[in-house]
Amino acid sequence: MNAVPNPLLREAAELSESVVRPIPGSRKIYLHGSRADIRVPMREVALDDTPSSAGVEKNAPFAIYDTSGPYTDPDYRVDLIAGLPALRAAWIEARGDSEPLADFSSPYTRKHAGAHQLDHVRFPHVPKPRRAKAGQNITQMHYARQGIITPEMEYIAIRENQNLERIREQHLLLQHPGESFGASLPRLITPEFVRDEVARGRAIIPNNINHPESEPMIIGRNFLVKINANIGNSALSSSIAEEVEKMVWSIRWGGDTVMDLSTGKHIHETREWIIRNSPVPIGTVPIYQALEKVGGVAEDLTWELYRDTLIEQAEQGVDYFTIHAGVRLAFIHLTAKRVTGIVSRGGSIMAKWCLSHHKESFLYERFEEICEIMKAYDVSFSLGDGLRPGSIADANDAAQFAELDTLGELTQIAWKHDVQTMIEGPGHVPMHLIKENMERQLEKCGEAPFYTLGPLTTDIAPGYDHITSAIGAAMIGWYGTAMLCYVTPKEHLGLPNKQDVRDGIVTYKIAAHAADLAKGHPAAQARDNALSKARFEFRWADQFNLGLDPEKAQEFHDETLPKDAHKTAHFCSMCGPKFCSMKITQDVRDYAAKLGTDEKAALEAGMAEKAEEFRATGGDVYQ
Amino acid sequence: MNAVPNPLLREAAELSESVVRPIPGSRKIYLHGSRADIRVPMREVALDDTPSSAGVEKNAPFAIYDTSGPYTDPDYRVDLIAGLPALRAAWIEARGDSEPLADFSSPYTRKHAGAHQLDHVRFPHVPKPRRAKAGQNITQMHYARQGIITPEMEYIAIRENQNLERIREQHLLLQHPGESFGASLPRLITPEFVRDEVARGRAIIPNNINHPESEPMIIGRNFLVKINANIGNSALSSSIAEEVEKMVWSIRWGGDTVMDLSTGKHIHETREWIIRNSPVPIGTVPIYQALEKVGGVAEDLTWELYRDTLIEQAEQGVDYFTIHAGVRLAFIHLTAKRVTGIVSRGGSIMAKWCLSHHKESFLYERFEEICEIMKAYDVSFSLGDGLRPGSIADANDAAQFAELDTLGELTQIAWKHDVQTMIEGPGHVPMHLIKENMERQLEKCGEAPFYTLGPLTTDIAPGYDHITSAIGAAMIGWYGTAMLCYVTPKEHLGLPNKQDVRDGIVTYKIAAHAADLAKGHPAAQARDNALSKARFEFRWADQFNLGLDPEKAQEFHDETLPKDAHKTAHFCSMCGPKFCSMKITQDVRDYAAKLGTDEKAALEAGMAEKAEEFRATGGDVYQ
Repeated sequence: MNAVPNPLLREAAELSESVVRPIPGSRKIYLHGSRADIRVPMREVALDDTPSSAGVEKNAPFAIYDTSGPYTDPDYRVDLIAGLPALRAAWIEARGDSEPLADFSSPYTRKHAGAHQLDHVRFPHVPKPRRAKAGQNITQMHYARQGIITPEMEYIAIRENQNLERIREQHLLLQHPGESFGASLPRLITPEFVRDEVARGRAIIPNNINHPESEPMIIGRNFLVKINANIGNSALSSSIAEEVEKMVWSIRWGGDTVMDLSTGKHIHETREWIIRNSPVPIGTVPIYQALEKVGGVAEDLTWELYRDTLIEQAEQGVDYFTIHAGVRLAFIHLTAKRVTGIVSRGGSIMAKWCLSHHKESFLYERFEEICEIMKAYDVSFSLGDGLRPGSIADANDAAQFAELDTLGELTQIAWKHDVQTMIEGPGHVPMHLIKENMERQLEKCGEAPFYTLGPLTTDIAPGYDHITSAIGAAMIGWYGTAMLCYVTPKEHLGLPNKQDVRDGIVTYKIAAHAADLAKGHPAAQARDNALSKARFEFRWADQFNLGLDPEKAQEFHDETLPKDAHKTAHFCSMCGPKFCSMKITQDVRDYAAKLGTDEKAALEAGMAEKAEEFRATGGDVYQ
Repeated sequence: MNAVPNPLLREAAELSESVVRPIPGSRKIYLHGSRADIRVPMREVALDDTPSSAGVEKNAPFAIYDTSGPYTDPDYRVDLIAGLPALRAAWIEARGDSEPLADFSSPYTRKHAGAHQLDHVRFPHVPKPRRAKAGQNITQMHYARQGIITPEMEYIAIRENQNLERIREQHLLLQHPGESFGASLPRLITPEFVRDEVARGRAIIPNNINHPESEPMIIGRNFLVKINANIGNSALSSSIAEEVEKMVWSIRWGGDTVMDLSTGKHIHETREWIIRNSPVPIGTVPIYQALEKVGGVAEDLTWELYRDTLIEQAEQGVDYFTIHAGVRLAFIHLTAKRVTGIVSRGGSIMAKWCLSHHKESFLYERFEEICEIMKAYDVSFSLGDGLRPGSIADANDAAQFAELDTLGELTQIAWKHDVQTMIEGPGHVPMHLIKENMERQLEKCGEAPFYTLGPLTTDIAPGYDHITSAIGAAMIGWYGTAMLCYVTPKEHLGLPNKQDVRDGIVTYKIAAHAADLAKGHPAAQARDNALSKARFEFRWADQFNLGLDPEKAQEFHDETLPKDAHKTAHFCSMCGPKFCSMKITQDVRDYAAKLGTDEKAALEAGMAEKAEEFRATGGDVYQ
């Protein structure tokens, strides 16, 4: 059965060495929960000792939240044709509220399964789909509201804490109190806290029962800020093999979820490959595929066809759907005087449909029916912002906020069905108008998690929009956004390659972490402290390895100081061996440590004594 | 005289084609002031027509603030051995309050001038120095306080307006009201406004009379946010030729000032080459050279030696000096418990000196004597933050703020002498602690311009600190910082190469512009509007050329869609020809334009009529 039928699959079956090699200086560890099958991955960075006059000080290894899945576990044999192990399968089955189906419910899926001309691109081991038993609601929100703590919730609590107790023991927890703007960050995340946040709708666990390979994660304002990476082929470019590789590449650098935005050939088959091999939740925009099915003619879209697409994708295991149900007929003409009109693809498709038929959007009118589908598989809503601004000029306008109000209404309907829901946000917004977006979203959408694209804080830097948007992303993350959708340097210009994906993700990890720090997330500053301590102590390898991109840091250091010896040198390339402020500071510190209280008082009084003593103890600072 | 004496000069005399070639899609223009010798450079981007059903709409060329000097003027013949023309020489001379000196005042300079072993690295046409006549104060602040509008001030007013009147005619001025936090941005900058801001100390014009080659520019909260680029060789790397090339490279991308932080060999000679060829103000940290003069032994520094260094550099034409006069003996032990101690080079040198001698800093004690030197040449103060935090953990601590208070005291002293003054700021600061820095600085330093390094908003991304810091820079620029000192991707790791300098500068232009937008600078949004309009109308070349880095944008677009035809294609690579939201939006807009008031009302009421009409007028959206 594992025979590789053709070149495409053979290519897909072999990931590049660059996407699976171990990350420098760290190893995979697993923290255990209350039962043997709760094993939460972390990446543990080994640290060197600090040399000091009193011998050496040990630096305990530092555990980092890890999104990379089994791919970075040297004990795991990667086999893309088999897919990842279904780690949640037993949990899902044990709940007894869902059942395997004899065949796929979607006629489209069944037709594709029987089409021999697709054999050469098909994932060879498509699993049987599951669905909620009749009358059952199987969402994590439903369980949470029943007071049930699922294994997923416990897994998440362990994961979010990032070994915080151990960090506390290491005194790395020196931390500024944050400004959380009303968020409630506990000192330690408990499974009960996770349950409560999901029950209140303030957080979601995107975990379709047909994606049992996924490692549970949470998106909510009172947890670590997450980031999403987009992949997907288009009519112009990329193959299935490339998309699978991009997914693995994305999670290596820290993507918490991945959206498959494919619009080209073989959308269904590409998605299967991605889901079966993805340890992170996968999101899609089902209208893209629906439009392909009608040959790109928006007017020909129908509710029946769209509904079948939702079921098709839900039974493959998509974890969240972007649905632009807030693009209502009455709002469309509000965009006519914009500088950049409607820039969301989904939004413009629905706008065209509404205008063409002069009818209210079927996504809006059929919203309760959509909820019925979502809850049968536990697919989460990502309510799309089809009218988001596409330029600074259009930020925070009537069209955008009319849609946001509608998304608030729809959130209440979704919650009535216990369907997990997050809300998408802009876009292009100058810095001083960002906060209004967050405040309105919290107010109108009942604190459902906000998931924003940037926002870009200026339009004038094509080629650098990962940066124009990271500024806005960091700020809106601080204000309360739960997940940031990355933007790559190619935004507005072309399709991102692997280097662009890496740049986009690392940039967004920076934004997310800067937001965690500013909010005062209890585990955030420990990593900054550990890295800064390493920097100050000239532990070069530790500085690289504690960073977001150890390979790049090492490579940059090598450019100026290529020798291995320099990785332990007590100076850096900026100032050279004779001229190092950190070296001088260490001497100042040694000296200050020897001062008594009286001496400090004397110092503060500016008395000009004791110069000889310092000359004697700290005279030879320079080499 | 123009004979090239040796290989080093020959190399210095020839800039790479990449640093002087014309910037794509634009040409150099000069706006004229009240007199013939006030010619203010701009870079004018030519724009394509907008095709429409009613023929074509002309898009007037767009003028951009230009820091690149004569190097991008095709009519100018670059001759690094001759240096730039002294455009301000006549203005300086005409004021009659300064005079040329027979020889340099600094014994060190005189010794170097006579050292034949330095002939091979010496700039061949060192001009005679000028100094204020006895009893005269020749600072722009002094003139401003006398009510005099200098040609420099008029030049700046024209430059800051960026052809705003013309933009207004083009209806590109649609603009969000900003949030300026108390800044006073006028609708149009007048020479009188420039004078008034300089007189009040809220802005500085760094323009040493010995740097007449410089094009006047202003640093202040009520003007465009500026950026500084650092260059400089170190003991480990780089030559004079490289440093001159880096300076020209920096201003090409938008550096408003350049700091020469050299610490290696031939500091004096390198600086002369840079100043003679620089159209932007040059800043230095004189203590670096003073330390070289005493063989790197901080304890051996003396006031006399430092004073001679100030005069040496002032007579070369350095426009602003970073002086760490706020690192007082009494503050030093406040840094002992920091995670990263003292990270400023200048700060740590002074700390070492103070502790070693157990004496108050000579920079602090001799501050009035320093003012006497500054005002004789019109060198501006950049009061250094020697105790700035070097890590998130150390942000906003007692040491940092004690020094800031002292800088406030020193500002009052400088102003008593009419010496122009700005204040340096951090450093590493989490987002939520940034605003406190700005508010305290405004309060303690009487609104003197703030000049910050970032701040970096997290420590965990070595290799990406241009981005960690751009987030903080944009925010603090919005809050009121007048100039942002760039950080390159190599920060903490190595010496920046040309690519790093480009990345650092473009990143900081983004931060500065995002700040201008958020403050509500009256000319800021026009460029975003022009670029977004071009983007929406598929004027690809215009989109690239209006951006901060046209070459990069074009290169990225070429990667996915290399053909020339695609530069006019009405689709982009993200979605392909069949599936374009912008195309759809245009159809929506065309349709909405045809709607009457009644029809709009009907739309808003959600009535399901008139579908046929849209089908007829907008049916063929897809190709």
